[in-house]
Amino acid sequence: MEQYPILSRINTPADIRGMDYSQLEALCTEIRHFLVENVSKTGGHLASNLGTVELTLALHRVFHTPEDTLIWDVGHQCYTHKIITGRREQFDTLRQPGGISGFPKPSESIYDAFTVGHSSTSISAAYAVSCVNHMKNNGLFSVAVIGDGAFTGGMAYEALNNAGRSKNNLVIVLNHNSMSISKNVGAFARYLSVIRSKPSYLRLKEQTEKLLDHLPFFGVRIKEWLRTSKSLLKFLLYHSTFFEELGFAYFGPVDGHDLPKLEQTLRRARELHKPAFVHVETIKGKGYEYAEKNPMAYHGVSRFDVETGNPDVAAADSFSVTFGNLLTRIADTDERICVVTAAMREGTGLSLFAQEHKNRFFDVGIAEQHAVTFCAGLASKGMLPVFAVYSTFLQRAYDQLLHDAAIDQLHIVLAVDRAGLVGDDGETHQGIYDIAFLSSIPGVTVYAPTTYKELEVLLRRAIYQTPGVTVVRYPKGSEPQKKIQGSNPSNDYSNWNKDGKIAAISYGRIFHHLFQAAGNLEQKPSVYQLHKVLPLSEKLISELMQYSKILFFEEAEKTGSISEQLCFALMERGYRGEFKAKTLPSGFIKQGKVEDLLKQWQLDAESIQTILREELET
Amino acid sequence: MEQYPILSRINTPADIRGMDYSQLEALCTEIRHFLVENVSKTGGHLASNLGTVELTLALHRVFHTPEDTLIWDVGHQCYTHKIITGRREQFDTLRQPGGISGFPKPSESIYDAFTVGHSSTSISAAYAVSCVNHMKNNGLFSVAVIGDGAFTGGMAYEALNNAGRSKNNLVIVLNHNSMSISKNVGAFARYLSVIRSKPSYLRLKEQTEKLLDHLPFFGVRIKEWLRTSKSLLKFLLYHSTFFEELGFAYFGPVDGHDLPKLEQTLRRARELHKPAFVHVETIKGKGYEYAEKNPMAYHGVSRFDVETGNPDVAAADSFSVTFGNLLTRIADTDERICVVTAAMREGTGLSLFAQEHKNRFFDVGIAEQHAVTFCAGLASKGMLPVFAVYSTFLQRAYDQLLHDAAIDQLHIVLAVDRAGLVGDDGETHQGIYDIAFLSSIPGVTVYAPTTYKELEVLLRRAIYQTPGVTVVRYPKGSEPQKKIQGSNPSNDYSNWNKDGKIAAISYGRIFHHLFQAAGNLEQKPSVYQLHKVLPLSEKLISELMQYSKILFFEEAEKTGSISEQLCFALMERGYRGEFKAKTLPSGFIKQGKVEDLLKQWQLDAESIQTILREELET
Repeated sequence: MEQYPILSRINTPADIRGMDYSQLEALCTEIRHFLVENVSKTGGHLASNLGTVELTLALHRVFHTPEDTLIWDVGHQCYTHKIITGRREQFDTLRQPGGISGFPKPSESIYDAFTVGHSSTSISAAYAVSCVNHMKNNGLFSVAVIGDGAFTGGMAYEALNNAGRSKNNLVIVLNHNSMSISKNVGAFARYLSVIRSKPSYLRLKEQTEKLLDHLPFFGVRIKEWLRTSKSLLKFLLYHSTFFEELGFAYFGPVDGHDLPKLEQTLRRARELHKPAFVHVETIKGKGYEYAEKNPMAYHGVSRFDVETGNPDVAAADSFSVTFGNLLTRIADTDERICVVTAAMREGTGLSLFAQEHKNRFFDVGIAEQHAVTFCAGLASKGMLPVFAVYSTFLQRAYDQLLHDAAIDQLHIVLAVDRAGLVGDDGETHQGIYDIAFLSSIPGVTVYAPTTYKELEVLLRRAIYQTPGVTVVRYPKGSEPQKKIQGSNPSNDYSNWNKDGKIAAISYGRIFHHLFQAAGNLEQKPSVYQLHKVLPLSEKLISELMQYSKILFFEEAEKTGSISEQLCFALMERGYRGEFKAKTLPSGFIKQGKVEDLLKQWQLDAESIQTILREELET
Repeated sequence: MEQYPILSRINTPADIRGMDYSQLEALCTEIRHFLVENVSKTGGHLASNLGTVELTLALHRVFHTPEDTLIWDVGHQCYTHKIITGRREQFDTLRQPGGISGFPKPSESIYDAFTVGHSSTSISAAYAVSCVNHMKNNGLFSVAVIGDGAFTGGMAYEALNNAGRSKNNLVIVLNHNSMSISKNVGAFARYLSVIRSKPSYLRLKEQTEKLLDHLPFFGVRIKEWLRTSKSLLKFLLYHSTFFEELGFAYFGPVDGHDLPKLEQTLRRARELHKPAFVHVETIKGKGYEYAEKNPMAYHGVSRFDVETGNPDVAAADSFSVTFGNLLTRIADTDERICVVTAAMREGTGLSLFAQEHKNRFFDVGIAEQHAVTFCAGLASKGMLPVFAVYSTFLQRAYDQLLHDAAIDQLHIVLAVDRAGLVGDDGETHQGIYDIAFLSSIPGVTVYAPTTYKELEVLLRRAIYQTPGVTVVRYPKGSEPQKKIQGSNPSNDYSNWNKDGKIAAISYGRIFHHLFQAAGNLEQKPSVYQLHKVLPLSEKLISELMQYSKILFFEEAEKTGSISEQLCFALMERGYRGEFKAKTLPSGFIKQGKVEDLLKQWQLDAESIQTILREELET
């Protein structure tokens, strides 16, 4: 730590509250070095954290954390926050198994007020905390820090609408990145730019207030009169932005890298003791000069899907890019194909599609609810919409799938990426619940490829041969290296060995492990690979009735799993044999390498082989 | 039909397009009579439909339905639309079994473009249709009609944000009810009032445009210059409302009962050929004079939860009011109790609470996502939040339950009302999916009372003795008339007869039917009543292992049901007996009387008795 003389002495925010600006400036430099050094090893979100160094320090200096509550939206920009709240020395364990999380986590620190990971939740939580503070009349503050990307999610607006009429000590900090605002983030992004471009108009208010602040006695009274009167002057002064219309005092835009100015603005917002909205402009990746010294580390994490918390761009050898390129080819000859993404163009492999079929590529912002109903609308007019979405984010659109698409059997296709365990991002991002929640929606069909070849067949089958809400789900990363050949995904399932005395079943990524495991055994089970996971094949069920023992291996949470549904279906038909399943638990799974997690839950090839051997012997 | 000389000749919207305003005025009068006469018999949403008579006619006259697409948000205001699109003669079957739906339904008519029922979906769907029209360059229009209440739902905003930058033929009509805007609908409602109160400011733009329209040649050029320039004048003319900031041309506010003015405004919006926002002011219940002649009919449906599509106020003898009053009493002595509703104060029985504990009563608008995360925020600071919500609307908050509350085991209580079949509202409102989707969220506890007495015990148990996300679910309506006494809801289940040769299990409303059915038999099964439905009781599972036959009766969809989960749990422990379940199907259930629907799915006492008798004999 000798290269970080100042940082190495910071153990709690109290340590930075007494520092002067020259020390703080040096501290910011050290923190940027520290971030680049560490994130280059652990991976993670570099650019967004380089952009919020000063903002984090300013917030912890102006507000008295942890008594005042600080809630980060999405949370991937919390690294500086973690570094100065006692986790500097564990920072090399970021996102590692057993290490600290890449997101705020209350179980990790009292400074992490709320679990985050998904977008647009911070204002709801911060407003709730401000209500509690108000009820208790304890004078404490509640602060939400939210990016302009997260403002495309409707929840943020629900919360603003609810909070704006309160009198609580609530401060919303808009972290407005000047960099990487994609054109299609939507109309709100443009609105924020409009605000930015008319500072003189906004400064009028600031200057008037400052002037009045310097007029003792009368100044206060004039300000009070201005605030309460119905004059046009008041209207111009206090209704110049949408946030003011909603009841927030608006401050900004302020340079998010000018620490003194930033703190001054936050202090003014704090002094108001009513809902305030502070518009901060930051530059993602601020501090390039350090990143430039270590280009490999920087480039590894340099491209972002705007604000969604996902720095990883899908590799060329991945299900994501295979899907995206394939869909582009299908769209070449079918003008009904449209693709929708909720701000995840890169992550879901849609760069090529966006380029070649620009008019049928729709990035709707971080708005999964709207995305699904938008697809339903396209389908209602005969288009063939495909929504490419991570499993974990699809959770946001449960009602829209059920209510807007499934009731009318509108044919929309969901390309569910990152299905199953995802690894480093931990509990908030595991894609292990989609099987359960999709199963509860009547009429949904789910396909699960194990290889790229199967993905191709199943995607076409989903688009052209399946009615209603149809899902193709596949894991993060690439197909198995040892390829499986000879499956027939045009059928609902493939049967690889029919003469086993017991039946072993799986689908998707785990099927490959089962296939390997069974291949190594002398005495083999009958091996079934599901291509269509839902609804269950009647033919399969009758075929399975003949076995006295059935084993199911599944990378999904236990409750609501296909294992559970198949077991029930068999019992309904009078099955009296044994039925055993290895699934993931009905619980939350922490960060870790996917291979390790699968091993832990006995879903790796070796564990499956051991289980098969035991079950074949008894 | 002789009392409706004009209306009786209207079979399609084409029939009203040639009419003059004096005829149309008479038609409006007839329609209001017709609505009052019919809704007094069938039940339904009277006030909101009386408010949209002129608006409906104007829309069908200005736009060429069904080629132009008209999407009603929520949809309960679609009665006039149904009456003039060929369903006048079936109108007495509204909401009746086999009759026409109280909501737009594409399977019913080509004029019903999209299935609706839940709030805030219309802009997403209408924007999608406008994209298709734009791609096809067919010149058609797409129109969404949305109330100010529905604007509290975040989805509406996600869609506005996405649509505002397009160049599509899209018209958003805001149906702004002057009546019954509850104070707590939020900041946006206040904003709309602000707009309404500054017409002179807005008219400036209108007048300038009109003036320019009358200046041939130069007028058009000046208008064009104004639109594209960066002048302050442009700013004042075209950035006067938030909707304009988002890229919509703003028109209004216009009197929604002045048909000529309304049509003129809609025509101007239509002529623009770009996204337009038309602010229409209507009066809910317009045409009181007719309602006054038939006060019984009117009062039966006169109180509304703002815009949520639910006219029925919970009766004093209902689970809803029992819950609300009980919670008020609990809150009397515990200041940590807070209650949250998503615009359903009356329906969820919270009037008393709102009155007696005003500062702990939170109506957050039609914003279930925000509601749940708001509860999580309250819980994070030690409060005891209870969210009272209809089962069907809780679907909106699936991700927030999982991600914002369950991961951190924050203790929030959900009072899930209208759980199970709801009857008249049909597919979009059945509360039959919550068991499945709640089961998929790790750590959720679900209690299901059969009687008010059990509700009391279980609500206290949920609040004070259960960690994490805890649900108490109960049906619409009242407890069974023949009371069950002697259950012990402090335990996880009650066993009413232990020496049967088979076991019969149920919970909630259906348990009463099982109880009755078993009571009538000479040879009795062992009867189990679940109080805690989730997680499954280990003790129960071991007790059940001894039976050679188990029957489960459940008012929930089959996939994801407790039946399915119990079956799997038994099989995992080596059960080899029979397991049979009567559940609702994994599908959508149409409108009908609850008793009839339960009979249809063999969940009434008589059917259960027959089943028990048969199963006891074999």
